[in-house]
Amino acid sequence: MDGHRFTPPHQPLATDEAESLDGWGFRDSAFEVLPNGNVMLTGDRYELSGVELPYLLPWVRKVMEIELPVADTHPSHYPSSIPEPRRNLPFLHEIGRLLPEDGVTEDPMVRLRHGHGHTLEEMYAIRHGRLERVPDLVVYPSTEEQVTAIVEAAARHDVCLVPYGGGTNVTDALRCPVDEERSIVSVDLSRLDRILWIDPVNLMACIQAGAVGRRLQAELARHGFTLGHEPDSVEFSTLGGWIATHASGMKKNRYGNIEDLVLDVHVITASGPLSRPHVAPRESAGLDPRRWLFGSEGTLGIITHAVVKIFPLPEIQKYDSVLFPSFEDGVGFLYDLTREGQPPASVRLVDNLQFQLGQTLKPTSRGAKALMSKTQKFFVTKVKGFDPDRMVACTLLYEGRRDEVETEAATVARLAKRHKGMMAGAENGRRGYQLTFGIAYIRDFVMKYWILGESFETSVPWSEAIALSENVKQRVHRECAARGLPGKPFVTCRVTQVYQTGVCIYFYFGFCHKGVADPAALYAELEHASRDEILKSGGSISHHHGVGKIRQRFLPRVFSKTALSWAAEFKRAVDPDNLFGISNQAMRLESDRIASATGGPRDD
Amino acid sequence: MDGHRFTPPHQPLATDEAESLDGWGFRDSAFEVLPNGNVMLTGDRYELSGVELPYLLPWVRKVMEIELPVADTHPSHYPSSIPEPRRNLPFLHEIGRLLPEDGVTEDPMVRLRHGHGHTLEEMYAIRHGRLERVPDLVVYPSTEEQVTAIVEAAARHDVCLVPYGGGTNVTDALRCPVDEERSIVSVDLSRLDRILWIDPVNLMACIQAGAVGRRLQAELARHGFTLGHEPDSVEFSTLGGWIATHASGMKKNRYGNIEDLVLDVHVITASGPLSRPHVAPRESAGLDPRRWLFGSEGTLGIITHAVVKIFPLPEIQKYDSVLFPSFEDGVGFLYDLTREGQPPASVRLVDNLQFQLGQTLKPTSRGAKALMSKTQKFFVTKVKGFDPDRMVACTLLYEGRRDEVETEAATVARLAKRHKGMMAGAENGRRGYQLTFGIAYIRDFVMKYWILGESFETSVPWSEAIALSENVKQRVHRECAARGLPGKPFVTCRVTQVYQTGVCIYFYFGFCHKGVADPAALYAELEHASRDEILKSGGSISHHHGVGKIRQRFLPRVFSKTALSWAAEFKRAVDPDNLFGISNQAMRLESDRIASATGGPRDD
Repeated sequence: MDGHRFTPPHQPLATDEAESLDGWGFRDSAFEVLPNGNVMLTGDRYELSGVELPYLLPWVRKVMEIELPVADTHPSHYPSSIPEPRRNLPFLHEIGRLLPEDGVTEDPMVRLRHGHGHTLEEMYAIRHGRLERVPDLVVYPSTEEQVTAIVEAAARHDVCLVPYGGGTNVTDALRCPVDEERSIVSVDLSRLDRILWIDPVNLMACIQAGAVGRRLQAELARHGFTLGHEPDSVEFSTLGGWIATHASGMKKNRYGNIEDLVLDVHVITASGPLSRPHVAPRESAGLDPRRWLFGSEGTLGIITHAVVKIFPLPEIQKYDSVLFPSFEDGVGFLYDLTREGQPPASVRLVDNLQFQLGQTLKPTSRGAKALMSKTQKFFVTKVKGFDPDRMVACTLLYEGRRDEVETEAATVARLAKRHKGMMAGAENGRRGYQLTFGIAYIRDFVMKYWILGESFETSVPWSEAIALSENVKQRVHRECAARGLPGKPFVTCRVTQVYQTGVCIYFYFGFCHKGVADPAALYAELEHASRDEILKSGGSISHHHGVGKIRQRFLPRVFSKTALSWAAEFKRAVDPDNLFGISNQAMRLESDRIASATGGPRDD
Repeated sequence: MDGHRFTPPHQPLATDEAESLDGWGFRDSAFEVLPNGNVMLTGDRYELSGVELPYLLPWVRKVMEIELPVADTHPSHYPSSIPEPRRNLPFLHEIGRLLPEDGVTEDPMVRLRHGHGHTLEEMYAIRHGRLERVPDLVVYPSTEEQVTAIVEAAARHDVCLVPYGGGTNVTDALRCPVDEERSIVSVDLSRLDRILWIDPVNLMACIQAGAVGRRLQAELARHGFTLGHEPDSVEFSTLGGWIATHASGMKKNRYGNIEDLVLDVHVITASGPLSRPHVAPRESAGLDPRRWLFGSEGTLGIITHAVVKIFPLPEIQKYDSVLFPSFEDGVGFLYDLTREGQPPASVRLVDNLQFQLGQTLKPTSRGAKALMSKTQKFFVTKVKGFDPDRMVACTLLYEGRRDEVETEAATVARLAKRHKGMMAGAENGRRGYQLTFGIAYIRDFVMKYWILGESFETSVPWSEAIALSENVKQRVHRECAARGLPGKPFVTCRVTQVYQTGVCIYFYFGFCHKGVADPAALYAELEHASRDEILKSGGSISHHHGVGKIRQRFLPRVFSKTALSWAAEFKRAVDPDNLFGISNQAMRLESDRIASATGGPRDD
């Protein structure tokens, strides 16, 4: 029956792919200020890399109304002091026999890295503060049998296990509970990164959970396929992490979100393997525990592999972009696009501030290029009458057969016209998407200059989308003003996903904390104020980032008491010893923790 | 925020819509043999209604190799003896104050009807045998507050509750556990059938769980919308039932299956209401108990309402049909359709036997119509060379904008040609879909003539689809031959859903039990042999019918022990007193029941 399946050869990780320990992304890529005051992204991975950016810092100074002297840095103390490991000797002894020497480490830097994701608070803590608790041991199983043995040994020796994928979460999902008295062992899945089989007839693939997005993309593409799942973290996040987080990819219009892509999931739990002998297209199989893994955030077991849908590589991939006079015009365009057409694989709408940011990430314009750029600008603002301080940009990515792409593009052109849009070309579209990966490095860069920044997102029905984005921006401004922070905060948003019923809105915000006593605590207050405003405005707790610990206090506002107690009782029933004790979503054994999660400071 | 929502006026049920108590469907519709030996469907609801069908019985005789004398009927003893109600007086007393007089009944016929769905065994039992246990009381709440009060009273007085929607399940899901010692109360949701609001801006509607498909369709259509969910039972099944069963509709290619349509679900559980204050397009909200209701089959609580996606009525609705020389050609066509195009809203492929059945459900051909029919037949078989005993038919239903439908239709025409298909027109397509609703009445009709028939379905990857359909047919033939049954069994299948990864295959089978001692037991053996063959051939336990009790013994073959224990532990945790004790999926409090579900006779 499986005769058409084949196992692709495994491609070892290239040696130049080392990731930063103290910041986002690759070790060779970071923004720096050059002696001439221009900014540059080091390395050569991205389009932005090696390009002098003269406009970025002046623009930040203008928008945030701060001086931002580049000589005045906030020096990083990374690695901050790292707690001593809490050893469980019987477990260590057993693990020593299970895994090879290079499969177990107590290295402090490695333990530190496995004790956090990429929330601002965590990154600030490892540079300027301290994580009170990090894993005491990191293990690297390279077979699923080893994972099973690790879980069994942990149960025997009363050890707390934490599955680790790409470490890219932005929800404090990997932050260790301070009061965890057991030895905490991080189970790093990076060696479980193989494509076990590809089924080209039924368009499925079986892939290990530790497979990283960028490599998965490349390996599948070598055989003519794509998974179609591209979260912004796709360079570093893993299949297992996507499932546990209930992730969404930017091309979901064509390929679906993670729950649409996963056909089966294999999990090592406290009570044995959650598994199935077969995989079927769609089933009505009663209560299906596999589906409970979506959004489980490490609390239920270790996902070891999954069967996912795959798609033939598209015949056509084409970018495009449209400028609109205002955010409202752009949202109107997106709304009609979901009503009257099939939206392209990806469509995004950035607000005016983010549009401006994109412009500042351009190199010095010289010669013909500068000329064109000026002509363009003249045309847009003078001839079309777009206000530079109101106009917004929509970027689009088409994928599919030629006829599909043509139909979609024709609808886009027709509806763009209806909403006063001006087609702005493929190059601007392509650049918009590429910028996403470069912009991810900015947060760590500006942190050096006393600016704390972060992103957060929500989903909301269409009718509330514009009001929500305005309310959140105003709330952040009000909260910053009330605290007398220097200058003005930076708050911008983009619509990153469209549905028939609404949108995902993704915010960036940043503020200068020069002179503030406890900036991390201040940040937490602002983050929580923003989420409060989102919920008040009809938004959800999260569209795709998840809950983790950063948003667990809001759960009682989005689920009834019964719903929360179901989750807690379920956790208690299937993991009675809390073997997977990372405690996201306030899921501890004491279900009264849920009540305590309603208020007070962050309770992890 | 909800200003755009409106509540449509409630349309009371027409008085002529009474349903049969002892068979499928409307009371005024049943097949009968006329004095001249022709067959006719009574009433005037369906295209088939009132039309003399001369070919049906002769064809059945030929295919099943039986004599089928119409004078030799197997007289129904409906209503078979009905168990006395087991009263819980304190509960009755409390309910008497909660509900009006017409909201509570002990009527034996009503209790009987609420104690079964539409499996063959159940229908046979109410006509020729006995249901050992049926609900002791039926209550009809008309508000959600009444549902809450009923659940609370049941918990106080140790009563077992069974939610009841349309009673159309084919999984023994409503069959009462024989050993249930508590009073069993059926909670009939037919009075909770309102559309609470329609949100035309965000394309959502909030609908009570007891709303029946056909009325929901009509009410939404009055406001320009459709839910797009059309299971074959749409005339009688309910929104709550679709969720609890994890249902699929024939137009899922355009609108999605039930899990794609439901945004929120409100449930009264043993521990309180499962609910949310807001609804969002898509979320990553951690463990989300709402999603656990899919496939819960009455074991977790009473679904009272749900928020669903709605769609504007399509600009175009168009039928079509294609004939293929063989089932293999037809499957090849469907496969390419999922690879190279967007399949129309619905596409179905019937095998040769079912194609023939469709032909026998035609009236006597007279005049021009007969001429055309003969000309057509000549062309297909003589000119095109199709073998009447091998050819098959594919029916299609397009819905959408004109340009979408045109693109889809062009792809269908192109691919049909590639697979030796012959376009057979809109009328044949339309007729194929209409027949579905009429054919549903045949099972009860032939039961009078010693034929037991049933349908069952599965989902399977593309590569196994043809082998699975052949294996199942051969297995049924072998099993019947081994038992020396008269004549030959009738086994036919159709592909009713296509996915990129595979298909849903829907079987009908029937056999003559004249002279058999215990036909119901024999049927159960054959049904189980078929499912065994399906699982051996790589098929799933069910695509959309569900598990209930009829397939619970197969659960250990499709889920690991851990997965089953998770489901059982979860049930124990959230409903510790088994208030919702209908016991589907072997979900009782004793988790060792799971082990016992692996073998032996049906254990309910």
